[in-house]
Amino acid sequence: MRKIINDPEAFVDEMIEGIVLAHPELVKTPTDDPRILVRADAPVAGKVGIVTGGGSGHLPLFKGYVGTGLASGVAIGNVFSSPSAKQCFEATKAVNGGAGVLYLYGNYGGDVLNFDLAADMADLEGISTETVLGCDDVASQPRERARDRRGVAGIFFAFKAAGAAAERGDSLAEVAAVAQDIVDHTATMGIGLSPTIFPVTGQASFELPEGEMEVGIGIHGEPGIHRGELESADAIVDRLVDPLVTDLSLTEGDRVAVLVNGLGSTPLEELYIMYRRVNQVLSERKISVEKVYVGEYATSLEMAGASISLLALNDDRKALLDAPAQSPFFQEG
Amino acid sequence: MRKIINDPEAFVDEMIEGIVLAHPELVKTPTDDPRILVRADAPVAGKVGIVTGGGSGHLPLFKGYVGTGLASGVAIGNVFSSPSAKQCFEATKAVNGGAGVLYLYGNYGGDVLNFDLAADMADLEGISTETVLGCDDVASQPRERARDRRGVAGIFFAFKAAGAAAERGDSLAEVAAVAQDIVDHTATMGIGLSPTIFPVTGQASFELPEGEMEVGIGIHGEPGIHRGELESADAIVDRLVDPLVTDLSLTEGDRVAVLVNGLGSTPLEELYIMYRRVNQVLSERKISVEKVYVGEYATSLEMAGASISLLALNDDRKALLDAPAQSPFFQEG
Repeated sequence: MRKIINDPEAFVDEMIEGIVLAHPELVKTPTDDPRILVRADAPVAGKVGIVTGGGSGHLPLFKGYVGTGLASGVAIGNVFSSPSAKQCFEATKAVNGGAGVLYLYGNYGGDVLNFDLAADMADLEGISTETVLGCDDVASQPRERARDRRGVAGIFFAFKAAGAAAERGDSLAEVAAVAQDIVDHTATMGIGLSPTIFPVTGQASFELPEGEMEVGIGIHGEPGIHRGELESADAIVDRLVDPLVTDLSLTEGDRVAVLVNGLGSTPLEELYIMYRRVNQVLSERKISVEKVYVGEYATSLEMAGASISLLALNDDRKALLDAPAQSPFFQEG
Repeated sequence: MRKIINDPEAFVDEMIEGIVLAHPELVKTPTDDPRILVRADAPVAGKVGIVTGGGSGHLPLFKGYVGTGLASGVAIGNVFSSPSAKQCFEATKAVNGGAGVLYLYGNYGGDVLNFDLAADMADLEGISTETVLGCDDVASQPRERARDRRGVAGIFFAFKAAGAAAERGDSLAEVAAVAQDIVDHTATMGIGLSPTIFPVTGQASFELPEGEMEVGIGIHGEPGIHRGELESADAIVDRLVDPLVTDLSLTEGDRVAVLVNGLGSTPLEELYIMYRRVNQVLSERKISVEKVYVGEYATSLEMAGASISLLALNDDRKALLDAPAQSPFFQEG
């Protein structure tokens, strides 16, 4: 292993402790459980809260999107493991400002199970909740079953837009509708060049010989749709972007936001080489790029690889992306 | 190799093209030479310009610090190679707003040679220049020869402070004095766990068996001061922070800014585990942490490892760090 860690069992708790020590003006752990992290001013009276959650190992996902104009709180699981229902519920209580709470997280079985249980607990305490699942990985299901897809990096767009809607005072139903609208218009495809190494076991999340690539890989190493020899950056981008354009039925004159996301150890230089080609391909199709994000937005620890997400834009979605936001990992405006 | 690239010889130019396509509102390439990148509104009349430069492969260093309240322009070399004197000069002309230009870059022989030649060319054209070298790597020279040290991640503090000074209208001499003051109060030490792989040759920058670490390593793989078995995060942080505290003669009641910087493929989770210990160690010494930066600020492509930088703070330095800034990779305020 090439990890800078202490006791592997303390990996998650020590990481959270570091985040809170580094950014006390932005986030806090309001209960005895260090796995519940919320924005420093939570709960915000009269505003809809947004709770996310999921396994660790994906920074800045999910903890990094807790802040103003973004998610209000997060329940944090072990590496690639769901938080408990109780943790999801405690996070709900901690951000509840009386206007209800949106659950916005990636579509994985354990997370769904525990957030659904938390919703029942919240209901018993009189806290209204709604749920929207991030499900943007086009490699995992066809368009007809889009809401069964796995959630990957594109959930960033939903945090940004739903967070902006909550901040401006939208109702719970309205914030949920914004989040669902974003999810329905977001598509992502990734490529992996090397696996994640689990801190506790030292094992790799999957096997992939050096010099090969897996197209459509999930952020936990779920199998993709093509494995073969590593190709050029331009060829890889074409493999990723074409299915996204088709999936979102984008045509000449359409507008998009683009996220080129690094999965961990792929250098920023390579992400910009990829963006160059994304811009070329979309320009050729006369699709207008109105927002660009390049960097690490959802990782798999040290996995080498990247993903490309497209969000089809209209004026409403664009305005929500442009709204101010601030978290330890993201700032807009 | 596990790189997402096209022709390796086009690595740098395609990366710059991607940056400009992604952030046209922030940066531009004002000449026929794509290796000269300046802020979108350069030159700014009446304000001091700041030109940096150096080899590629260190994103967000150096290109990432071109923006408002930061550097005004950059001359970009090949991977780990200096830009030419002509490129440094062209960048100088492109940012010259009539108040002179500060050269602020890391202390490496090729860069010094070419920037000094550029200063001569600028002088012939009536453009005043001053030079301040980033030289914060305590492993490379003892304190008595601090200005002979290699420049590493701590130059970020100098960009931030000198950029703020230029933005508020300081004279060239004043901006240079701010940069030198920051450099003189900054100390950095790094640790490497794996090498950089050069895009063109596919060769590693140095050899390091898995499970070993090199303390004090430079950002091009220059040898450090200790090689041995990989230790715990806490033990590593202690090895890095103690020499920094000594070097800066920090004692009880002193104030610092901290930068925990990832060198490439070390996950953000591990950087926060490191920050947790940095905070502990400084708290025990009753040194007050007033600014914290955790993330990738100066990398070596996909090198695994991290560095810790400390800047001794006073009110002036703190105010300059707090001033607004915006670039493709950094935003404050």
